[in-house]
Order: sequence, then C-alpha cells, then structure tokens
Amino acid sequence: MKGGFNVREELMAMGARAREAARVLARTSTAVKNEALKRMAAALREEKTTILQANALDMEAAEKARLSTALKDRLLLNDRRIEEMACGLEAIVSLPDPVGEVISMWTRPNGLQIGKMRVPLGVVGIIYEARPNVTVDAAGLCLKTGNAVILRGGKEAINSNRAIVRVISRAAEAAGIPAGAIQLVERTEREAALLLMKMNEYLDVLIPRGGAGLIRSVIENATVPVIETGVGNCHVYVDKDADLAKAEAIVINAKTQRPGVCNAAETLLVHAAVAAEFLPPLLHKLRDVYQVEIRGDERTRELVPWVKEATEEDYYTEFLDLILAVRVVADIDEAIAHIAKYGTKHSEAIVTENYSNARKFLQEVDAAAVYVNASTRFTDGFQFGFGAEIGISTQKLHARGPMGLPELTSVKYIIFGDGQIRE
Amino acid sequence: MKGGFNVREELMAMGARAREAARVLARTSTAVKNEALKRMAAALREEKTTILQANALDMEAAEKARLSTALKDRLLLNDRRIEEMACGLEAIVSLPDPVGEVISMWTRPNGLQIGKMRVPLGVVGIIYEARPNVTVDAAGLCLKTGNAVILRGGKEAINSNRAIVRVISRAAEAAGIPAGAIQLVERTEREAALLLMKMNEYLDVLIPRGGAGLIRSVIENATVPVIETGVGNCHVYVDKDADLAKAEAIVINAKTQRPGVCNAAETLLVHAAVAAEFLPPLLHKLRDVYQVEIRGDERTRELVPWVKEATEEDYYTEFLDLILAVRVVADIDEAIAHIAKYGTKHSEAIVTENYSNARKFLQEVDAAAVYVNASTRFTDGFQFGFGAEIGISTQKLHARGPMGLPELTSVKYIIFGDGQIRE
Repeated sequence: MKGGFNVREELMAMGARAREAARVLARTSTAVKNEALKRMAAALREEKTTILQANALDMEAAEKARLSTALKDRLLLNDRRIEEMACGLEAIVSLPDPVGEVISMWTRPNGLQIGKMRVPLGVVGIIYEARPNVTVDAAGLCLKTGNAVILRGGKEAINSNRAIVRVISRAAEAAGIPAGAIQLVERTEREAALLLMKMNEYLDVLIPRGGAGLIRSVIENATVPVIETGVGNCHVYVDKDADLAKAEAIVINAKTQRPGVCNAAETLLVHAAVAAEFLPPLLHKLRDVYQVEIRGDERTRELVPWVKEATEEDYYTEFLDLILAVRVVADIDEAIAHIAKYGTKHSEAIVTENYSNARKFLQEVDAAAVYVNASTRFTDGFQFGFGAEIGISTQKLHARGPMGLPELTSVKYIIFGDGQIRE
Repeated sequence: MKGGFNVREELMAMGARAREAARVLARTSTAVKNEALKRMAAALREEKTTILQANALDMEAAEKARLSTALKDRLLLNDRRIEEMACGLEAIVSLPDPVGEVISMWTRPNGLQIGKMRVPLGVVGIIYEARPNVTVDAAGLCLKTGNAVILRGGKEAINSNRAIVRVISRAAEAAGIPAGAIQLVERTEREAALLLMKMNEYLDVLIPRGGAGLIRSVIENATVPVIETGVGNCHVYVDKDADLAKAEAIVINAKTQRPGVCNAAETLLVHAAVAAEFLPPLLHKLRDVYQVEIRGDERTRELVPWVKEATEEDYYTEFLDLILAVRVVADIDEAIAHIAKYGTKHSEAIVTENYSNARKFLQEVDAAAVYVNASTRFTDGFQFGFGAEIGISTQKLHARGPMGLPELTSVKYIIFGDGQIRE
C-alpha cells in the first residue's frame, strides 16, 4: 500500500457512489435509460480504436503469460466483436422495462388496496472472468433495470475492461445517467474481490460468472446474497419408446453444436432395450463425423468395443469439450436416479414418445429446465424469448434458469389506505 | 465428543435424510399433505399433556437461568397456545397448494412450448429463537409447500421443541409423509448451528427468525442462501397536508398496538408546518394514555419541553418497546432522506392528503412495504391476505415483505418439443 487510498477505502467509496447512483436510477425514466443505451452503443463504435488498443495490451500480456489458445480467443476483441457488443446494447433498448410494473393489486376487506410493484434490486455486483463482452452486457442489463453495477472482471482483461467502462459510462452520463451507475473495480488483486463479496451495506446481490472455481469461491466467501450461475452437467436420456431418429439428432446437437457452454450435454443415458439398435451407429457418427471422444460403461463397451472406459469421475464432469460419457440404464427410474446423483440441476432431456414417461421425467427430474424431445442447448435467454440474459441461475432462490430483465428486479408492496389502523 | 457420532456426522446424516424426504415430498399430492396437516393438529391436541410436561422442564431451566419475564413468556406453553398451534395447522390446509402451478406458458416460433412451473425449494433450514410455536408454523408451511425442513430452535426451548417435533412428525408419517420431512437439530451447541449454515449440499435455503444478533450471525457465517427476515426500524411521516385526525390514529396504532414486533413504528417524522398543532396533544396522549416514552429533536423539545433529547443512536434503534423517537423535518425530502439513512427497508408510512406527495413517497422510499394513510402494523401475511407467513423478508432477493406459501417455492421450466435442435 503506497500513501494514498487503500483497497478497502477505495471499494467502500465505490460502494457509496453506487448506492447514491442507484437511488437516482431507481426513478430514472425508461426514455432516459434507452437513450443512454443507444449512446453507449454509438460510443463503442466511435471509440473502437481506443478499445482495440487497450485490448492489444491485454493480448500482449496474455502472450507473455502463455495463456491457452482458448483463453486468448475469449479475451480477443476485434471489429466484429465490438459491433456485436453495440448491437447487444441496442437489443436491450427494445426490451420492455420491468421497473414500475405492478404485477398484481387487490383490495382487502378493510379497504386497504395492496399492490406488488417491481423495483430495481439496487446495486448489483458482477464478478467474472476473461470475456470483455460481459462488461458491456452486464452494464446494459443493469442500467435498463435501474440498477447500479459494480463490475469486477479478470486481471487478464483489465485494460480492455477499463477502456470499455470509460467509454460506456461517459456516454451514459451524457444521456443523464448518474455518475457511479457503472463502475469497474480496477484493483485486480484477490483482496479486492474478497472485500466486494462482503460489502453488504452497499451491494444488494452478487452474480459470479465464470468457471466452477470462481463460483465456489464466491459462495464460500460472500456475505452479500449470491445468485449462483452456470455449471451444467446436462444429460440426454433416450427412453425405450424414443423416436430414434429424433434421439440421434438431439444427442448430436446437444453434444456438438457448441460443446464449450453450460447447456451442452455431457452424458448420454440409453434404455437397455434400445441400446443395441441406437448406440453403435450413433457413436460411430459422433466419433467419425464430429470428432467426439466417447467414454462408456461396460454395456456400452460390449456394443461398441473401441469405446473408452468411463470412470465414476467422468459422470460428475462438465467436460465443456467434445467428450461424451455414455451409460446404459435398465429403465427410466435408473436414468432419473443417475441424473439426481451426478447432475447439477441445469438442463435435462428425455427423448420418448411415451406419454407417461414424458410426464414422469418432467415431474421427477429436479433441474432449472427439463425437456421432452428437444436439445438441452435451448436453455438460454434468447431461445426462451426473454432477450439478453445476465446468466443462467442454477440455484433455487430468486431466479432459476435463464435470467432476463425481470430477474434483475425485486418488488415492493405499495399500500393505499384512508386512515386504516390495525384492531 | 464421546464415542458415537460427532456433531458433523449427525448433521450430515440429517441432511441426507432431509434431501431424500424432499425428493418424495416434491411429488406428494395435496390431498396427502392436507391429511398430514390435519393429523398433526389432532396429535398436538391429543398429546397436549406430554408437550406441556416437556415445556415445564424448559420453564424450570428458564427460572434457574433467570431469563427475563418477556423471554419466559415467549417460551411458555399452555392449553390456549397449543390450541392456537393446532388451529394454525388447520388454517394451512385451506390455503391453495402452490406446487405444480404453471405460472405461465408460451410457444416459441420453432414450436417449443415452454412453461414455468412452481416446485418446492427442496430442504429449508430454519434457525430461530425461543418461541416454540415457530416449530409448528414452520413445519406446517414447509410441509404444505413440499419442502423438507430442518429446524434448529434455541436451547431454552429444547425440551418443548423435541416433544412437539416427535408428536407432529409421527402424525405426518402416519398420513404418508416420508420420515425425514420434519427434523429437529437436538444438538444445542453453537457448533451445530454453524455447521447447518454451511450444509450447501443438503440445504437449499436458510431462514433465520429472531433478533438482530441471530440474523447477523447467520448472514456472516452462512454459505447456504439466506432469506433475511425481521428487523424493522419503521417510520411514520406526517406531511404538511396530512389529515391530522387520521395521523394521530395511525401514529398511536403503529407505536402502541403491539410495540414488540417488527412492523411497529419507532420514529415519527413531522413536517415543520404542522408540528406546533400536531405534536403537543399527540405526545401528551402518548405519554399519559399509552405510557410511551418520547425522545425528540430540538424542535420537538421546543414545542413539548418535557420530551427527552433523542440521540443519533435512537434514530437507528428498533426499540421494540413503548419508546418513540420524534423529529421535525423541513419537508418531504428531508423525511425521505431520514428514512433512507436510518431505516431498515421494512415498513414506512406517509400520512397526507396531497396527491403528489403520496406518489413521491411511494416511489422514492425503498422498503418492503410503503403505506399512504395506513398503519405500518399491516405488514403481515394474514393482513395482506396471504394467510400464514414464514417470516417477513427485509432483503430484496427472492422474497420481500411477508412470505407466504409461494415464497417457499422455486420454479422449473418444463419444455415440450417434437425433436427441436438448435441451429
């Protein structure tokens, strides 16, 4: 610590600014918020060069630090990606503003009229990893819902994030948004993240976005309420009454369409009665056409001898890669029990033409999204029709599944009386 | 630790039993759950003597430990209180079961039909203080919503709670509810509570009910998601355009109708323009008729010289007693700023006939319940029309204000496809 502000003081000051901004933002009109989003988009385009220069510094550091190709790709900004960020902000403009919506209103026998109104959460903290587009998405979604946001990105993206926040917060302020509505924690030391997790006075909620390690650390350390996002160990169960053509298309899509995301499938469960017919052609295709590595149980390996042996650990793993674990099950109950044991309650699918089995699976599987005859890849704010999302909640409190704008709000009861007192 | 199970193993075993019970409970019919509630009520009446004997042990210990009269009163059970508990369970029977309700359902352009369905939270932990009626209320509300519950009451009530849980869980099981659905942590050491707060694998949510100290301890130590309840530093603001007769009735009701609860008012704010007319008769009446101690600012004491001086600390305090802090404010903005600074976002009231001021107060005050021309005492599940409540949330995540049955549920998305895959 040299001379000036220490980390704690710096963060507390940010918190106080955010709290003050949130008070103003809560009553800022939709028109002003939309104008700010448009100006933020325009500013990203106008100041593209500045942002790309800052990103180049991060890329240089990534090179020196020998980050993996995948990580470097997530970090990289270019013309197209900046344009996508700008378009993302413009898409938020067209979403309805949930703030002020009165969800329901009723009158009590004593004449009290009680309404339940959506209000902003207040101050939202986001702790995230490499991708700088999260900076823009989160700022846009929080702004539209009247929340101040404190962003804490990874140190790999610090130059990019700093440039982006400077550009968009200046544009927002020019449209009438209070200073302090969009702030970035520029301190990249771990201490800063830990302090943020305990700023109950200034933060109403903390949303971690990133890998399992980041999320675990936030859950263990935060005293601020957390919305857990992301980890998806998803299954497709092919029932004995499945339409096997649909099943094949769904498994291939769920595994290969984008293997690195949380709603991709990691394990295939197949009813024993159809395994011999279904598995050999599917697994060959997955290997030969889609370069998927297969790890199977004994019964799978009897049917397809080249399949590697799956370990217990494999069934627990979110591969996020072109790897698929396979297991033959005796019946739907064994499939449901497998999912209950190994799953992360994210997205689970059954493929079946059997009415009762479809109903049973929907009822008994405990997950944010449970599918009949569709790919798990649809668990997503855009695919559900919500528009942009701030993440996919895998907890049960407050929000579950894709979180759109309403999930970034709370409620308050507004009560109209004419002198009522309690007897 | 002697020989057998240690605390951790004991709690983990309870958690595993609760998780297993929750899986069964989630698909238990409303009919079975209602039958169980009725039998639980009947069993409380039938085994009244056993429960009262157990309570006598607690009362004896309370006497020896020289607990305060107030605390002993909260601990005490008698015929009437047991009858109230039984009636409370019967009242839950008549409330609609939220589990399985599909809140909304829509069809996407690709034909996917997506529904949002209410499901139980899973396993709910309740950490609470003296009053044994919380044991019955919490068990009943959790059962109706298909949640398993792990109860951790205060050590003062351990004998009463043990007897009650034995009686009601046996009755529930006889109606077909799985064993493990209602469990009591019988270990009264602090270590047991701390372990419970970190059982993320087995607990979906933790609800503390009790004083500020208990709630703070849970927030600081829990890694399980918490719903914060209770602390209410509530205000009544009497505007310059108030109907002063309504204002007097509301202030008296909010302060004195039941001073020991969280929705009672603690501070009165009065607009300077009406202070001279309003305060002297009101404060005399509060003192002389209702035995309320008044602590005021300088301007209040100029009008009513016998008023004690209010300290800065007083404005922050939830007295839960016949004490009222009073402050004269220059205008509505000063009132709103005072509430923002000292309040706990529970229940806040304005008394005014002025349309714009009413609207401004409703909009700008950030609290679970904001009232115009009514007593703050109405913030309550029964008064709002929800029926029994598990507590009053003062946080913004998941639930805010009185929490009824729907607040004890989560959602899951159910998706019906016919082979859809993502492009």
